[in-house]
Amino acid sequence: MSDTLLSAMRGIVGASHAFTDSDLVAGYATDWTRKHSGVPRLVVRPADTAEVAAVVTACADAGAAIVPQGGNTGLVGGSVPRSGEVVVSLTRLDDLGPVDATARSVVVGAGATLASVHNHAAAEGLAFGIDFAARDQATIGGMVATNAGGMHVLRYGMMRAQVEGLEAVLADGSVARRLGGLPKDNVGYDLPGLLTGSEGTLAILTRVRLRLVPARSERVTALLPLDGIDDAVALTARLRGTLPELEAAELILETSLRLSIEHGGLRTPFAVLPPAALLVECAADDDPTERLAEAVEDAGVRGGVVGVDRREREGLWAYREALLDAIAAEGEPLKLDVTLPGTGMAGFVDDLEVLLAELDPRCRCYVFGHVGDGNLHVNVLGLAESAAADAEERILEGVLARGGSVSAEHGIGVAKTRWVPRSRDAADLAAMRAIKRALDPAGLLNPGVLLPRA
Amino acid sequence: MSDTLLSAMRGIVGASHAFTDSDLVAGYATDWTRKHSGVPRLVVRPADTAEVAAVVTACADAGAAIVPQGGNTGLVGGSVPRSGEVVVSLTRLDDLGPVDATARSVVVGAGATLASVHNHAAAEGLAFGIDFAARDQATIGGMVATNAGGMHVLRYGMMRAQVEGLEAVLADGSVARRLGGLPKDNVGYDLPGLLTGSEGTLAILTRVRLRLVPARSERVTALLPLDGIDDAVALTARLRGTLPELEAAELILETSLRLSIEHGGLRTPFAVLPPAALLVECAADDDPTERLAEAVEDAGVRGGVVGVDRREREGLWAYREALLDAIAAEGEPLKLDVTLPGTGMAGFVDDLEVLLAELDPRCRCYVFGHVGDGNLHVNVLGLAESAAADAEERILEGVLARGGSVSAEHGIGVAKTRWVPRSRDAADLAAMRAIKRALDPAGLLNPGVLLPRA
Repeated sequence: MSDTLLSAMRGIVGASHAFTDSDLVAGYATDWTRKHSGVPRLVVRPADTAEVAAVVTACADAGAAIVPQGGNTGLVGGSVPRSGEVVVSLTRLDDLGPVDATARSVVVGAGATLASVHNHAAAEGLAFGIDFAARDQATIGGMVATNAGGMHVLRYGMMRAQVEGLEAVLADGSVARRLGGLPKDNVGYDLPGLLTGSEGTLAILTRVRLRLVPARSERVTALLPLDGIDDAVALTARLRGTLPELEAAELILETSLRLSIEHGGLRTPFAVLPPAALLVECAADDDPTERLAEAVEDAGVRGGVVGVDRREREGLWAYREALLDAIAAEGEPLKLDVTLPGTGMAGFVDDLEVLLAELDPRCRCYVFGHVGDGNLHVNVLGLAESAAADAEERILEGVLARGGSVSAEHGIGVAKTRWVPRSRDAADLAAMRAIKRALDPAGLLNPGVLLPRA
Repeated sequence: MSDTLLSAMRGIVGASHAFTDSDLVAGYATDWTRKHSGVPRLVVRPADTAEVAAVVTACADAGAAIVPQGGNTGLVGGSVPRSGEVVVSLTRLDDLGPVDATARSVVVGAGATLASVHNHAAAEGLAFGIDFAARDQATIGGMVATNAGGMHVLRYGMMRAQVEGLEAVLADGSVARRLGGLPKDNVGYDLPGLLTGSEGTLAILTRVRLRLVPARSERVTALLPLDGIDDAVALTARLRGTLPELEAAELILETSLRLSIEHGGLRTPFAVLPPAALLVECAADDDPTERLAEAVEDAGVRGGVVGVDRREREGLWAYREALLDAIAAEGEPLKLDVTLPGTGMAGFVDDLEVLLAELDPRCRCYVFGHVGDGNLHVNVLGLAESAAADAEERILEGVLARGGSVSAEHGIGVAKTRWVPRSRDAADLAAMRAIKRALDPAGLLNPGVLLPRA
C-alpha cells in the first residue's frame, strides 16, 4: 500500500521529492527538542499549491494521515510523525511576492522563513512585526499554524494580527483562497483567523498575506535592575503607557541572568545581580534614547545599562539570547511556556520555587519571558524523569488556578493535549471538536495534535 | 404550539419579558432602514446568560428558529424576523464590569450600548477604539456579531481587534466561556474570532471582554480640499506613515459635501467646493495641531480648515455627520457599502457615475467613506425600483472585478446573501457551510442570514 502511495506522490512531485529512505527522512522525523520523533510513512515535498492539493487528494483517497511540516522548530511535537503519517514538508513553497509598500503588505509562500521575510521587507524600507530566535528555520506557514509570538508581541500582537489573508488546502484537497488583503471585508466567517493557530489540524497553509510595519531607524536597548517581578510588571505597564515605541520588555530573573553570564562568558552588567532584570527596547523614526531614559528615571529606576549603537545593543540582548544555549548545555529541561495575568506572575514564581524545592532540592529553575504579555518561560533542569511529570502537573495546575494559560505561544502539539479539556469548558471543547469533524471528517490532518483523541 | 413556547419563555424570563402583542413586538420587527421587517413568533428578553441559555434550549426543544437582536441598528436585515422566528433581544444584558486599568480591558454584557462603553471607559481615563453614529442604540453584542467598523478603524482596527474574549450560548443551549483575556493563550481554535462577524448564525453572544485604548486629551480636526479621490488616498497613506496619532480620514465627494451644506444649513467651508474633501482627525497626549499642519503642508495641500476646540471640531464633523440625515430626508436610497483596493477607488467612482447616468440620468449619487480602509459608502437617490436592482447588480459586479468587497462593514444579513458565493471560492464557501452545520446542525440560529439557503 505504501508503495502505491509513494508512486502516486512521485508522480505528483517528482521522484526526488518523495522518499522513505531512513537517512533522507531523518531530518523530518525529529523535532528541535529531540523529545518528539516518529517514523513517517513517507516524506513528500511539493513545490507549489497545486502539488500540495494533489498530495492531499492522494492521501485522502488512500486514507493516509498527514503531518504538515514547516521549519520543524516547534517545541510540542506538532510537526513530526507519530505513527506512520505522511509528512508533507512545505519548505519548497518559499516564494516571496512583491512588497506592496502603500498597503504595507506582502504575499509569501508558507515555506518562506521568518528571516527571509525580514530581509524581503527591509529591502523595501519596511519590517515584519514578529521576531524570535529560530528565525532562520521557522517558516511563515508554521508560524501561522501555531499563532507564533516572540519578542515584539507587546507592540505588534501575535501572528494572528499579522495575517491579512490565507490560501489553504482543505482536507479533501480543495483550495480555499482569501488573499485579497482588504482591510474591511465582512463577507462570511473568518476562515483565516480560524486556521491561524489550528496547528495543521484543519487545513494545510500554502500562502499567506502578511501585514508589514514601518522599519524604525533608531533604536535603544536598556537592561534595568529591579527588585522583583511585580516591579517589572509595573514598569512595563508604565512604559507602555508613555512610550508607544516600546517594542520589547524581556524579564530575566537573577538565576537566569547568572547562568547567561557564566555560560556565555559575558561581562557582569551590575556590581550586584538584582532579583530581576528587565531588558527593554524602543524603536522609532527619531532617537528614542532620551525619552526612554526620562521614562525610566520618572519611574524611579536607577543603575540601568543603556545600549545605543548596534554592538552595545547586541551586547545587552546577549544576556537574553545566551539563555537558551546555556540551558541546553546543562541538560534536557522540563520546558513550560505559560501566561499569567500580570498580578499573578510574582506569586506563581514564589509557589514554583517552593514546589520545586519540595520535589527535588537539587533541581535548578530558570525563569524568563515576555513580561508585557504575562508570558513566562520556565525551564527546570536536574529533575528526575518521574519528578518531572509530577512537577509539570502541579505547576500547570497552579497556572490554571491563577487564571493563566498552559500554552502561551508554543501551542498544544501532542505534548499538551491532555491540558485542553482542563483549559476549555465543555461547550467550548465540544465546539472545537465539531469544527474539526466538519473540516476534516476523516481525521487525516495532523491526528493526535491539539485535540485529545476522543 | 406557539402558546406552549410562549408559556415556556414566560417561565424563564417572566411574563412581561416574553410577548407576541403586535404593538409590543413592533419595535423588534423592523430595522433601521425600514426595508426589512417580519412578524416574529414571539419576542423574548432574557436578563442574563442563564436565561439566554434556557431560552435557546427551549427553542431547540421546540425546533423554533431564533433571530438574535441587539440594538437593531443593522442595515442588511440580519436582526429582524423573516418568517415567524423567535426574536431574542439581548438589550437587558447591559451590565458593565469594572475596568481593568492596567490591562486596559473590561467585560461588558452583549446588550451594553456603544455609548455606555465609551462613557464607562472614559470614567477611568481610557477609551474604546470603535465609534460610529449609531452609538446610542448599537450594542456591543451586535457589533461583535457583525464585526463593526466605523471612523477609527485605521487606527484601532475593526471590532475583531477589540475582542479579547467572549461568552456565548451555542445552538444546543450550552454556554462557552473564554473571558480570561490573556494576551497569549494558544490552547485550541480561536472560537471568539470565529464568532466575531458570524452575524448570529453560530451562537448568541452574551458577554464580551473588550480591549480599551488610552484616552487622548488633545485633538485636532481638519477639512482639506483636494482634487480627487486619488489625492485623498495618497494623502491618507502619507499621513498614516508620519502621524501615528491619525485617528480618522473621511472622504466626502463634492456632491455629498454640497448636500451636507444645503440640508444641514452649514457654512460653506471653501470659497469654491473642491472635487473631494478629506476630514482628518488626530488625537494624542500632547497637542497634535502643529504636527498635522506640518504634514499637510509638506504634502502640498493648501486651504484646509482647522478645528482645535470642541466647537470648531464638531463644526467640521458636521459636514460628515449631516450627510446621513440629509440623504434620508431626500428619500430611500440604494445603499452600498464597499471596499476597493486603494488604487481602485477613483476608477470605481468614475465608472459608477457613467453607469448611473446611463441607467437614469435624473438619479443623484452621494459617495463618502473611510478612505484609509478603502471603504466607500454609496447612496443613490431617485432610481426607479427596477433600475435600483439592476444598478446594485452592476455596481457590485464592478467592485468584485476590481478585487473589492461587496460588504465592507455592514455585513451580509439577508440583503446580500446572493453575493457570498460570488465573493468566496467554492472551497471557502463549502468550509463555511460545514462550520455552520457543525455548530448549528438544526439550522435554528438566524436562518437565511449570511449564507444563502442551499
